[in-house]
Amino acid sequence: MSTVKAAVLTAYEQPLELREYPALREVAPGEALVRVEIAGICGTDVHLWLGQLHVPLPVILGHETVGRLEAIGEGLTHDWRGNPLAVGDRVSWASSIVCGECYYCRVKRQPTRCTSRKAYGISYCADTAPHLRGGYAQQIHLRAGTAIFRLPDSLPSDAVVGAGCALATAIHGIERSPVEWGDTVIVQGTGPVGLAAIAVAKQAGATKILAIGGPPHRLELARQFGASETIDIGAVSDPAERHKIALAFTGGFGADVVIECVGYPGAVNEGIELPRDGGRFLILGQYANAGNISFNPHTITRKQLAVQGSWGFEPRHVDRALRLLEIPHWQQLFAGEITARFPLEQANEALRTVKNWSAGKTVLIP
Amino acid sequence: MSTVKAAVLTAYEQPLELREYPALREVAPGEALVRVEIAGICGTDVHLWLGQLHVPLPVILGHETVGRLEAIGEGLTHDWRGNPLAVGDRVSWASSIVCGECYYCRVKRQPTRCTSRKAYGISYCADTAPHLRGGYAQQIHLRAGTAIFRLPDSLPSDAVVGAGCALATAIHGIERSPVEWGDTVIVQGTGPVGLAAIAVAKQAGATKILAIGGPPHRLELARQFGASETIDIGAVSDPAERHKIALAFTGGFGADVVIECVGYPGAVNEGIELPRDGGRFLILGQYANAGNISFNPHTITRKQLAVQGSWGFEPRHVDRALRLLEIPHWQQLFAGEITARFPLEQANEALRTVKNWSAGKTVLIP
Amino acid sequence: MSTVKAAVLTAYEQPLELREYPALREVAPGEALVRVEIAGICGTDVHLWLGQLHVPLPVILGHETVGRLEAIGEGLTHDWRGNPLAVGDRVSWASSIVCGECYYCRVKRQPTRCTSRKAYGISYCADTAPHLRGGYAQQIHLRAGTAIFRLPDSLPSDAVVGAGCALATAIHGIERSPVEWGDTVIVQGTGPVGLAAIAVAKQAGATKILAIGGPPHRLELARQFGASETIDIGAVSDPAERHKIALAFTGGFGADVVIECVGYPGAVNEGIELPRDGGRFLILGQYANAGNISFNPHTITRKQLAVQGSWGFEPRHVDRALRLLEIPHWQQLFAGEITARFPLEQANEALRTVKNWSAGKTVLIP
Amino acid sequence: MSTVKAAVLTAYEQPLELREYPALREVAPGEALVRVEIAGICGTDVHLWLGQLHVPLPVILGHETVGRLEAIGEGLTHDWRGNPLAVGDRVSWASSIVCGECYYCRVKRQPTRCTSRKAYGISYCADTAPHLRGGYAQQIHLRAGTAIFRLPDSLPSDAVVGAGCALATAIHGIERSPVEWGDTVIVQGTGPVGLAAIAVAKQAGATKILAIGGPPHRLELARQFGASETIDIGAVSDPAERHKIALAFTGGFGADVVIECVGYPGAVNEGIELPRDGGRFLILGQYANAGNISFNPHTITRKQLAVQGSWGFEPRHVDRALRLLEIPHWQQLFAGEITARFPLEQANEALRTVKNWSAGKTVLIP
Repeated sequence: MSTVKAAVLTAYEQPLELREYPALREVAPGEALVRVEIAGICGTDVHLWLGQLHVPLPVILGHETVGRLEAIGEGLTHDWRGNPLAVGDRVSWASSIVCGECYYCRVKRQPTRCTSRKAYGISYCADTAPHLRGGYAQQIHLRAGTAIFRLPDSLPSDAVVGAGCALATAIHGIERSPVEWGDTVIVQGTGPVGLAAIAVAKQAGATKILAIGGPPHRLELARQFGASETIDIGAVSDPAERHKIALAFTGGFGADVVIECVGYPGAVNEGIELPRDGGRFLILGQYANAGNISFNPHTITRKQLAVQGSWGFEPRHVDRALRLLEIPHWQQLFAGEITARFPLEQANEALRTVKNWSAGKTVLIP
Repeated sequence: MSTVKAAVLTAYEQPLELREYPALREVAPGEALVRVEIAGICGTDVHLWLGQLHVPLPVILGHETVGRLEAIGEGLTHDWRGNPLAVGDRVSWASSIVCGECYYCRVKRQPTRCTSRKAYGISYCADTAPHLRGGYAQQIHLRAGTAIFRLPDSLPSDAVVGAGCALATAIHGIERSPVEWGDTVIVQGTGPVGLAAIAVAKQAGATKILAIGGPPHRLELARQFGASETIDIGAVSDPAERHKIALAFTGGFGADVVIECVGYPGAVNEGIELPRDGGRFLILGQYANAGNISFNPHTITRKQLAVQGSWGFEPRHVDRALRLLEIPHWQQLFAGEITARFPLEQANEALRTVKNWSAGKTVLIP
Repeated sequence: MSTVKAAVLTAYEQPLELREYPALREVAPGEALVRVEIAGICGTDVHLWLGQLHVPLPVILGHETVGRLEAIGEGLTHDWRGNPLAVGDRVSWASSIVCGECYYCRVKRQPTRCTSRKAYGISYCADTAPHLRGGYAQQIHLRAGTAIFRLPDSLPSDAVVGAGCALATAIHGIERSPVEWGDTVIVQGTGPVGLAAIAVAKQAGATKILAIGGPPHRLELARQFGASETIDIGAVSDPAERHKIALAFTGGFGADVVIECVGYPGAVNEGIELPRDGGRFLILGQYANAGNISFNPHTITRKQLAVQGSWGFEPRHVDRALRLLEIPHWQQLFAGEITARFPLEQANEALRTVKNWSAGKTVLIP
Repeated sequence: MSTVKAAVLTAYEQPLELREYPALREVAPGEALVRVEIAGICGTDVHLWLGQLHVPLPVILGHETVGRLEAIGEGLTHDWRGNPLAVGDRVSWASSIVCGECYYCRVKRQPTRCTSRKAYGISYCADTAPHLRGGYAQQIHLRAGTAIFRLPDSLPSDAVVGAGCALATAIHGIERSPVEWGDTVIVQGTGPVGLAAIAVAKQAGATKILAIGGPPHRLELARQFGASETIDIGAVSDPAERHKIALAFTGGFGADVVIECVGYPGAVNEGIELPRDGGRFLILGQYANAGNISFNPHTITRKQLAVQGSWGFEPRHVDRALRLLEIPHWQQLFAGEITARFPLEQANEALRTVKNWSAGKTVLIP
């Protein structure tokens, strides 16, 4: 095979193009080549396709990927956890690389805000060699410094990509706005991040979890993941009515922790009224700048809230995510999120299922 | 003396009326009578006068008070700290009483959100016996359960009332959104809460403090309290310009902690851009519901902020405030805030100086 | 019934005496009378019987009790959680009362170290009226200020007494030395406190738990409670061998959290080597002063440990314990701990089963 | 100059030997050569000389060093903080290098416990090229990855070496066992670490600090650094008497935070009784394994203590230390600690002053 295929975003809101790039064989020290086996489609990919986050075009999308090592550069002898690496190993990796040297990496220990952070499937122009820096392709080239994780045989690729970046995102956010055992939790949104937040809250010992979202097939998933109760925003379309149900669910005072995983900015106004006074509100879904809302800051003072933002995740959180997925219960649930599989040639159809919320999790099999 | 005088708010935005009430002599178990020596006028009193917070009218305002014990009820043998109490002792007290039994007091340990919290000078109707439940009066009646503090001789009343409720408010807020030694801090607002926030940040070891406020006589105080630099919002009226100066002050990234002590809701939009990514933003000034702002929640996610609200304070924080005031440096600064003294008969003139920001701290000498 | 029976400790290491006291009918404001239905025997009772903790003799032991309200004093209208109380209600209560006023209660918020804390079944001399202040009796008199909890019908008394004070003790300790989800935990000791620590660690999301204890019937319980692996100290009597197994269990570095629930001081030396560097070591079992050990403090520095002590619990922790017991899984496990029931007349036999570790949990049915 | 001189430890408890090594001129990428201007003698150097910590011999001691860059390798363009580096710059550096890849570096974020950590002046055999890896020499060779800090002109070398590794050590420890503003603190030991702990506690806002140590010239320093009171262990040689004074100092209950900076293991037994119940005890001085003590673990349970160990420091803490030293007050105090200066030829005399506590801080001027 002298060329590899990739689905490339060449212009916002236009169909991805199937392009061919020279297959790579050689790697410099620390680098790796991976034959992609499965690539997840993340909601962020839709935002990218819509042009809501600006990236260098053309770009090969795909930042949730599992594949097999085809080549490993000199000095790359072990994975992030210290396990030995060999050609043929099945691996996944943290989607971002940070510099480790800037003010945020070093002095303030906020590496997710590294001033020169770059992410596979997002930040690399496909016109520049080695071209293959996204998951929607048959091969991907990993830079030196990528946090690679060798997957244990007991951990199926479907669970890893089913969990996707959503699980590490939820873990990072909940690390900053913790759920304690016995807490009552409300999760806004039942997309991949919402389901992952339910999973982490459940694992952390939350005893009551209310999920607000939809459509019904996602609420069914939410219940399987651990939601004690759900509100279908399609059926209960009035936020005041949802507020009433949520208060009743929490004994009248509100939840200990509320986790926003919606993305639509109006969800912040709905969510901020749902914690009990002195509670926590984790804003996990506002990744894209979707504009302003009319907001009353007095609410934060009066309810004495701890409102927390969270951006991305570090390799540590991928490590925790993969460990969580070693628990059979979670492994099955996250693998089960995948309900639609497409070949690379149908990347546009695949993207459409995500845009339309018509599947659980959608993946490409390049 | 068979009657005592009090300045009473009888109708919003109307002049306070000087009324007479029967002087009290007897107290039930746990209660106390205090001859008021000095009563501070808080910015909240202006909000109350304007009707921005609804309270039972008529009301004797005044929740920052020092006086001498005239009578102490059975069982009231010691102050909150365990020091013995005797008639004639000079005392101050926490302005609020909480039930100690509700969901917020017990289960969630958020006593400032007690469902039946009542505050002297705010929550008690003056038509109801014993009438005298505010500081703008010659005598005040303290309920059983009031957290009374006997003042050491070395601590002048001026320092206690000069610090007022602002200092305990700042201490409570900064407990929830801590300043660590070496931090760079920005304080928005140079009224009593802003100055107190500067003091607490300085005591906690902040090495650089920028105060944004005015007018110039308050910025001069801010520098005395510990601000390394100030921005006069009168002179630099463009928020974009202030943002530029603030960023330069913090080395380009923003402050570790930003403390909003303004009250005007627009200050939240200016303030939320001032912490570094991963920093803390304490909203301390939005006590009154002053309406909505156009706000972008993406900022919280992108900057990965910890935004914290804070409501009131507990007796613990009065204790810490009084201990801070035992340090001569702070004692002198807080006592020095008082620049205007009025007799009870001139309560309206006194209130006006606070409304117009024309004094440092204004007090009544009943 | 004009008298009630009680099993009374009159002299250390001597058999408890069955005595009769005047039955109580009237209560002062805030007080309550309870007809005892079931009283747990705690390991502490054995320490008390052996004279290892000094208490006023004679004393009616018993600080883990469930019964029905026979009389409630004026003003005692609601339980600690705010639920209404009525004669006939089935209740339990926090065993200790604190003053709420001392340096530890108020200033430092360490109420378990209240300078005048008193505990039912421990601190009250049975010679002093109203005599009945311990659970090993048909009736118990509760002082005003006791934190009473009305038990929901769905929560059997067996679960409450099966969990006993051990569960609240574990909750308090782990609050100070937290288990995070995904943590690897080692619990030393498989008595009631050890089992409770396993339960709390499991609920908090620990993914691997090693229990070190015995005898085999208790290790079987430990596995049911959530231990992934157990070491029988009877079978593996060499601490060096146990250390080797524990290290292997934790991947060679040690556990994130080690919880000592043994009581024997030598356990501290074994336990302190078991956390990974930078890990946490919770000393939960050293309630009695059982003397000195030869100890190397360099270990704490070198391993950079956080070593935490914990003393008793607050009503909040009883609340959390009772909420945990509403989860059917835990309810059944804790109720199932009870394997021996005795009438009051056989209190000495009952005490002996605890002393000899020959039962799970032993209770009296007065 | 074709050779450089170094004072070399060739055998424990034997005089250091003055040896010559080939002067270095060339550096590989990322490396640096530094002309040593001043090298501090740390108490650890005495432990090393005594053979209490095993290191590869021969070794050039010295891990507290300031010098000027003579050569900088390719790619080494900026210091740890991002400031540009040039030949001739005056610099200092973190004494240790960690791998950044092991379980402690990555997964558990305890880099001071890196499994392959190496420290200048301690871990490098002087027989192996490039030989010059300790501060007691005219030249030192810095490995790629060393955290180098360019010193601002306003920061004298004396302050940096006067503070030495003690200040970063104290900062790291107190980060784990925090001093809050208003706290009462007891510091055991008035050597460099004790004085640094006083400085950090003072900067963090401690309002009362008791230093227990000696000899008198060091207690005088302790008072200058911020101790409100001191106990001379020479004058008050009975620990029970010291305990009485310490309790009186803290109002009878003990300190909020006690910091052990002695090293002698018996100090742990004295110190552990000095925090108030629920307080913190930071064991900062037990770097060398100096054997066992007879210790009662019940104390930790009964007093509900948080006992914290701390090992070394990270580059972040050097950064904080250097920032602290930019404050003129601290700069002068730490620079003033230096009371003895020796040429390299008198390294043995220098070491002796430290061993005998006969100077403040002793330095070599190579």
